[in-house]
Amino acid sequence: MSIFDFFRSKKVNTASVAKERLQIIVAHERGQRSTPDYLPALQKELVEVIRKYVNIGNEDVQVALENQGSCSILELNITLPDR
Amino acid sequence: MSIFDFFRSKKVNTASVAKERLQIIVAHERGQRSTPDYLPALQKELVEVIRKYVNIGNEDVQVALENQGSCSILELNITLPDR
Repeated sequence: MSIFDFFRSKKVNTASVAKERLQIIVAHERGQRSTPDYLPALQKELVEVIRKYVNIGNEDVQVALENQGSCSILELNITLPDR
Repeated sequence: MSIFDFFRSKKVNTASVAKERLQIIVAHERGQRSTPDYLPALQKELVEVIRKYVNIGNEDVQVALENQGSCSILELNITLPDR
């Protein structure tokens, strides 16, 4: 099973959710070669794109960057403000 | 369990991977209100941002957009070219 399968393999349970939230996950699965890791720079630009659509501050964005073997995973968790 | 938990709950197995790949998942979990769905427009801009970092053509990007109850999920699967 690859990273491309596992994201879709679980059902979403949103019964108890009140706040609007946005989550962005960027998974980079490398081949045999090692590559420069552009994810931190990409992260900044992704947040800028999101800002065009929703009004978020820096404190609304939580970021995690994980390396698991040949896979780098960037995770952005964004709490959207009440309007 | 929320959408914010389920992405990280599985282990990645990349043993048999050769090609470099990139996956972007954007999950929008709405609250009580219905909201205009900006995900298709966002998708276009995300691909443009990715293009700054890696050289990809339109045919390298596969897109899926899913609605599950109060959760919209945009999934971009990108095969990176050999360099």
